[in-house]
Amino acid sequence: MSLRVAVVGAGAIGLYYGAKLAHAGGDVHFLMRGALDEIRRDGITVRGEGENFTVAKANCSNSTADIGPCDLVLIAVKTTSNNDIVELIPPLLHEGTMLMTLQNGLGNEEFLARHFGKERLLAGLCFICLNRISRNVVERFDYGHIVIAEYARPPQARTREIAEMFGQSAIKCSVAEDLTLERWRKLVWNIPFNGLSILAGGLDTAAILADENLRSSTLALMREVIGAANKCGHPLPETTAPEQIRRTEEMNAYKPSTLVDFEAGKPLEIDAIWGEPLRRAMAAGAKVPQLKIVHALLNSIDQVRRAGPAGRPLS
Amino acid sequence: MSLRVAVVGAGAIGLYYGAKLAHAGGDVHFLMRGALDEIRRDGITVRGEGENFTVAKANCSNSTADIGPCDLVLIAVKTTSNNDIVELIPPLLHEGTMLMTLQNGLGNEEFLARHFGKERLLAGLCFICLNRISRNVVERFDYGHIVIAEYARPPQARTREIAEMFGQSAIKCSVAEDLTLERWRKLVWNIPFNGLSILAGGLDTAAILADENLRSSTLALMREVIGAANKCGHPLPETTAPEQIRRTEEMNAYKPSTLVDFEAGKPLEIDAIWGEPLRRAMAAGAKVPQLKIVHALLNSIDQVRRAGPAGRPLS
Repeated sequence: MSLRVAVVGAGAIGLYYGAKLAHAGGDVHFLMRGALDEIRRDGITVRGEGENFTVAKANCSNSTADIGPCDLVLIAVKTTSNNDIVELIPPLLHEGTMLMTLQNGLGNEEFLARHFGKERLLAGLCFICLNRISRNVVERFDYGHIVIAEYARPPQARTREIAEMFGQSAIKCSVAEDLTLERWRKLVWNIPFNGLSILAGGLDTAAILADENLRSSTLALMREVIGAANKCGHPLPETTAPEQIRRTEEMNAYKPSTLVDFEAGKPLEIDAIWGEPLRRAMAAGAKVPQLKIVHALLNSIDQVRRAGPAGRPLS
Repeated sequence: MSLRVAVVGAGAIGLYYGAKLAHAGGDVHFLMRGALDEIRRDGITVRGEGENFTVAKANCSNSTADIGPCDLVLIAVKTTSNNDIVELIPPLLHEGTMLMTLQNGLGNEEFLARHFGKERLLAGLCFICLNRISRNVVERFDYGHIVIAEYARPPQARTREIAEMFGQSAIKCSVAEDLTLERWRKLVWNIPFNGLSILAGGLDTAAILADENLRSSTLALMREVIGAANKCGHPLPETTAPEQIRRTEEMNAYKPSTLVDFEAGKPLEIDAIWGEPLRRAMAAGAKVPQLKIVHALLNSIDQVRRAGPAGRPLS
């Protein structure tokens, strides 16, 4: 399977997976704004245990019209930029173009399906600890595998073909039957760790788990999310919580992406990671008092920051 | 009743009530460190609706030995300085000296009783919105009344005598039967407003109530605290929550004292306002998931800040 691939969004996720595919010989085209000059000059460098390489000549452009139709579009912009991609994507489409969102949280597939049709849609859930340490260098701290699933239907032939292509590019990959179940499983991690990392004063995963009270709140929040998933009809076992805590302990200290956004003064992915899960949980009658307060606090912090110097100052 | 009064702690609360007593002709002696020179030179000024006065000659000292024995000691230091007062207070004591803590939260009376005997102890719960706007100027935004109670016993003759003295000094004052019940009633306000004001990004009471999600979380936290008080044997009606919300809406926008401390880089009164109530709630079997997470987050923020530049940076 030889696919023409577009990567929309040149953050850590987009650069990493795009570079992996390109490094393995894939026909990959990056859409980017800020880093265009650096990447044309220096390429994209990936660092991490067992993988240190540079894609010296990355095809990159600041226009999807220049890139033209592709077979697979990897969507790796923050969910806070979803409105922008509505206009960016059409030039990349031919009749059979597949759209695979690599974004966090809930609601992205529904959004993309409304604009581009649900048949095109797949998702790749990225279980990976990455930081972009400069505009063209991405460092992987841990993990790296992707769980691929179709939107609102079981895996198809194309799903397994993409997984195969990823595997041939040294990306660990598996195919899941139920996308929404996998999204909730990932939220069991993102909701506490991404949220508490900011609210607790700027802590990485190791610092959160080293604080007895925060560790206990992490576990309690995980249980709430599991309860919500179950109420929403996506069965996740209770053991998911202690398992994820244990795996997080085994990995290197990591700053969740939302904390990285917070420190960089960027908008936070409030709605995808906390807002939409909260709405679904409450609609299903789940009791989620801790998710509710974490969402309210993050949402307020995000608004206070966006109001900027003219608004309320962050003290 | 003519009492020799010492005020230990020259923050907003100590300066305000001490100045009110002195302005009415009381024999008041202030213990203070930082503001000594300004107050000796300029006196203490109180501003607020219906009261604008300066105590030109305030008796103040940086040594309780200089002040000597008093009949009533008002304790107005932050609870985070409780360890300091163990050594400061003995020179102020004669056999019948009364200690009245004006501090927030739970656990202060028990602490003072251990060191100075429970018979001396009373508390004054300050329902007031004050900010110290310079070292010797205090502004009252709203309210002002004190609820006075004995520690671990019903009101005595002295309790009513103190209330009378306060009343003659134009301090609204009432006497309560059950100190701990009143402490919980005050915590119904302090736990959400003082906590969320910091965690939500630096908001005053009006901004908290204007944000639909925060308002809902405030109410939910209030209900948790009421539930905890009831489990601990202090009956507070459910209606306390909406009543306090309504009264807060009617008052001017106010920065809770813990937010003022936070913005000034001072230690936060975590244990008195959140820690001890949480321990008592959990010991009584109350379900307080939101109090637990708010406590964990504030405690972490306080620690991160205290670690200072050598510790983890606040971003």
